[in-house]
Amino acid sequence: MACTFNTIALIGKYKSPEIAEPLLALAQYLQQRGVRVLVDQLTASHVARNRLEVLSLEEAGRIADLAIVIGGDGTMLNIARTLAPYDVALVGVNQGRLGFLTDISMDSMLETIGAMLDGNYVAESRMLLASQLQRGASTLLEVLAFNDASISKGADGGLIELEVRIDGEFLYTLRADGLIVSTPTGSTAYALSAGGPILHPALSVFVLVPVCPHTLSNRPIAVSAEADIEVLMRRCADARLHYDSHSHMELQPGDRIRVRRYPRSIRLLHPVGHNYYGMLREKLHWSETL
Amino acid sequence: MACTFNTIALIGKYKSPEIAEPLLALAQYLQQRGVRVLVDQLTASHVARNRLEVLSLEEAGRIADLAIVIGGDGTMLNIARTLAPYDVALVGVNQGRLGFLTDISMDSMLETIGAMLDGNYVAESRMLLASQLQRGASTLLEVLAFNDASISKGADGGLIELEVRIDGEFLYTLRADGLIVSTPTGSTAYALSAGGPILHPALSVFVLVPVCPHTLSNRPIAVSAEADIEVLMRRCADARLHYDSHSHMELQPGDRIRVRRYPRSIRLLHPVGHNYYGMLREKLHWSETL
Amino acid sequence: MACTFNTIALIGKYKSPEIAEPLLALAQYLQQRGVRVLVDQLTASHVARNRLEVLSLEEAGRIADLAIVIGGDGTMLNIARTLAPYDVALVGVNQGRLGFLTDISMDSMLETIGAMLDGNYVAESRMLLASQLQRGASTLLEVLAFNDASISKGADGGLIELEVRIDGEFLYTLRADGLIVSTPTGSTAYALSAGGPILHPALSVFVLVPVCPHTLSNRPIAVSAEADIEVLMRRCADARLHYDSHSHMELQPGDRIRVRRYPRSIRLLHPVGHNYYGMLREKLHWSETL
Amino acid sequence: MACTFNTIALIGKYKSPEIAEPLLALAQYLQQRGVRVLVDQLTASHVARNRLEVLSLEEAGRIADLAIVIGGDGTMLNIARTLAPYDVALVGVNQGRLGFLTDISMDSMLETIGAMLDGNYVAESRMLLASQLQRGASTLLEVLAFNDASISKGADGGLIELEVRIDGEFLYTLRADGLIVSTPTGSTAYALSAGGPILHPALSVFVLVPVCPHTLSNRPIAVSAEADIEVLMRRCADARLHYDSHSHMELQPGDRIRVRRYPRSIRLLHPVGHNYYGMLREKLHWSETL
Repeated sequence: MACTFNTIALIGKYKSPEIAEPLLALAQYLQQRGVRVLVDQLTASHVARNRLEVLSLEEAGRIADLAIVIGGDGTMLNIARTLAPYDVALVGVNQGRLGFLTDISMDSMLETIGAMLDGNYVAESRMLLASQLQRGASTLLEVLAFNDASISKGADGGLIELEVRIDGEFLYTLRADGLIVSTPTGSTAYALSAGGPILHPALSVFVLVPVCPHTLSNRPIAVSAEADIEVLMRRCADARLHYDSHSHMELQPGDRIRVRRYPRSIRLLHPVGHNYYGMLREKLHWSETL
Repeated sequence: MACTFNTIALIGKYKSPEIAEPLLALAQYLQQRGVRVLVDQLTASHVARNRLEVLSLEEAGRIADLAIVIGGDGTMLNIARTLAPYDVALVGVNQGRLGFLTDISMDSMLETIGAMLDGNYVAESRMLLASQLQRGASTLLEVLAFNDASISKGADGGLIELEVRIDGEFLYTLRADGLIVSTPTGSTAYALSAGGPILHPALSVFVLVPVCPHTLSNRPIAVSAEADIEVLMRRCADARLHYDSHSHMELQPGDRIRVRRYPRSIRLLHPVGHNYYGMLREKLHWSETL
Repeated sequence: MACTFNTIALIGKYKSPEIAEPLLALAQYLQQRGVRVLVDQLTASHVARNRLEVLSLEEAGRIADLAIVIGGDGTMLNIARTLAPYDVALVGVNQGRLGFLTDISMDSMLETIGAMLDGNYVAESRMLLASQLQRGASTLLEVLAFNDASISKGADGGLIELEVRIDGEFLYTLRADGLIVSTPTGSTAYALSAGGPILHPALSVFVLVPVCPHTLSNRPIAVSAEADIEVLMRRCADARLHYDSHSHMELQPGDRIRVRRYPRSIRLLHPVGHNYYGMLREKLHWSETL
Repeated sequence: MACTFNTIALIGKYKSPEIAEPLLALAQYLQQRGVRVLVDQLTASHVARNRLEVLSLEEAGRIADLAIVIGGDGTMLNIARTLAPYDVALVGVNQGRLGFLTDISMDSMLETIGAMLDGNYVAESRMLLASQLQRGASTLLEVLAFNDASISKGADGGLIELEVRIDGEFLYTLRADGLIVSTPTGSTAYALSAGGPILHPALSVFVLVPVCPHTLSNRPIAVSAEADIEVLMRRCADARLHYDSHSHMELQPGDRIRVRRYPRSIRLLHPVGHNYYGMLREKLHWSETL
């Protein structure tokens, strides 16, 4: 059943003044439809603020029924992580080549979003991962990620060695360039280039993808998203921890990285006719004969 | 909660007279514990039948609480397919190197099974797939598989071309040596050698693994086990359809192969201390440092 | 140093009457330049023969300085194998999408070939493999291949097991769906889809690419083209031997397949500006930024 | 034809006092055979120096006919790079599990080396790569490597983008975690874990292996070792350049890394019975049936 969207937040790509004009056009269109339009502070710094309510991103997430993100998949990843705790649906408008998460073209933005406000949309639920970095008794980091948590060798090129436990059971000791723990959303990002499988976005599954493992039979392994994944660093060299290819932390031997499913999912709205497999075929240049 | 096993079927590897002696020892042991012991007809052909009830395999499945399979993983695959419709738990005893499904050594069989009958076991549920081969209006084949359904080029080496639909949505046209649709159980069998991921056995997931695809970006894709998978053959050369690497059928252009989850699961019992990841590490020669 | 081409054979794709017209136009153009034009018997069956000399393909190879093949890469593979023993250069004209071996578009055929006859071309040498199938004391088959020799499981899907020796030294026992022994030319064909590396066409190297090996660490291995490669079949099921994805033979346990470099190479001529890497980028959809 | 070794350098693993005792035993054994024994300065710091001539490593390389390296493959890589300019053969003694380059067990060292001094050995030639890092008009680095040159993303995890040219021809623009340019010796090291093929050590070939490329069809490509390989950095983030997984340099956009074959090869001596394929089988856990 479709919802009504009375309050909509507009969120633009960071440091991108070129989105000011389309964003204001969209704001005006929405206001004409009687929608209350919010803008977050960073986005507001690019646009003339008259008649737009400016709030923090979190505050906007708390109040809005819907957030329209204007940018690429990278922008959507960032915004989705921040808004995940709130009950706000997400829609992505793309300036350039359409993305997996931002599948509305800027050119047809007004018509498409108009139709969606009329109730013509497809809703999809996407899981996030919650992760902690623990050093001794203290928790150094506690973050959400939409794509993946990844542990990578650092600049000095030294080998990393780590142990993985799933629900407390020992999985393996891995010597490798890295390890990626990916959600289904992340399975078409970094994990795919490291040889991981594609996971349909509706699956409740994590996949662990080793990067350049020394043991050639160390293959990607998919486990339930209800699992408690724990990585213990044994040898670190200059290893780093990344979330969604961002926010890196230096790791030390003995550090523990835990990954679990974040209890709330993101509600992503697509225009009617949205086609996940069609996006895959286009993005991956699969030959399409139909 | 553990069950009581009052009636147990003993099933030996096909055409393997060498299992007669251990099987009779096991039968005697069970009878001394007051268990009613059944033997299927094929197994019975190798053993002196005095005091053993001989039934068809299906009849044994209908009556027994537990079936003890003596053989390797291949034997277990065959028996599990046949017994899947019945409410009978399965245990596997292995003559040689332990398998994923047959993880009780024949040497310690009596003690281990004795302990399991006392309630000391771990139960695990494994899904099967149900598949149909449709040619025009008729259904040529309707089978269960525990590992996988696979479509392969035949002897003449010609290219096969097929279309896949998931829940009616077009996934891709594949030109390849073959396509494997695998259950989690099958993910460590043929699908793994074709580059598929390992799926934890508790997942409700199918993975589609292309074999030598012409389009290099055609990667394995995991979808929900609730999905309705349909493969339409377009070019066949001499293509064949296999289930659990068995029972091949020649395919023709226009043939449709459907794969869905079989509604009943297999209940596999393991001795206490059973460790799926430990089995993976041993089978795949993962270096273990713990 | 460029050669002069006084006698040219025109060879069309098998069973393709549509090439009659362009082929006759090309013949006329060449005759106007004073070239003696030959046609092989199969090609001649499609064209009005007046003023064209018709010979067997072998005879044409013996007499001509240059053979112009009109078709796709598959046609070129076939013709190159047959003409390899003769001292005749090859040029490929493609009806459709350009191929690795047939890189002259039919649309601009007359101008391009005219320029090449004036000496504006790039010559390239490509190795072939010579292979024998030996059963006991007899040699069942003795063939050339341009792309590859491949051993594949047959229609019944059974495992094949074989042993490989390189210059008499044991390499490995392979249990797999198959094994491909590829030339550099074949490295962008079947071998690539099985996970093999791309070999620059000028390399004197064979690559052995296992297809779906049971042992996950069985990786492609490149050896000198001067090596003597011997494959001994141990378990065959219904295994087949193919050359350039053609001419399959059923294999039996004990069969020996030998692969060596064929002493003569093929001389392939390209228009000036031919670019192997550019062809790779286009065929494999590599993103090109230059 | 075998050579006579009158002057032998003994070189121990760096910072490994435990090799003092076996090294002295070997020195004594060699002196008893009338051999002049040299020790480099680093090794000498661990051993009582009486009766051993101590020289710089380079000086030892200039004077000795043979250098015996006691350590693992990592030590041999280091020593081989340093001694490559000199006409000195190399032999490797391993303290632990035998390596590809250090295939004499310390336990049987005296007998094995004695037999080799009697002329019972197999000599093998191994190529190295010479590489330069150029920034603008200046050459920042000029090094040899035995295994590989590799460009890797650094600690911040940012994407790297680079262009490759082979003999001046544009190959591709690569967006990836990294790129490895490997010799045959390096093909069983880092390049193998990144999906590269195994190259027989006698091949005159480099292989370019992309690490986690964004474009899934970017496969390893083997080119002649006579090729001039040039990598131009376009986007660097925090990218690093490594040789034999050592000596990293930070890279900047516009940097050019050139790789060519080093004109001198290393002469590696093995005991009679040395078997490259046997080493592969053991190291990679290939199932061996012979």
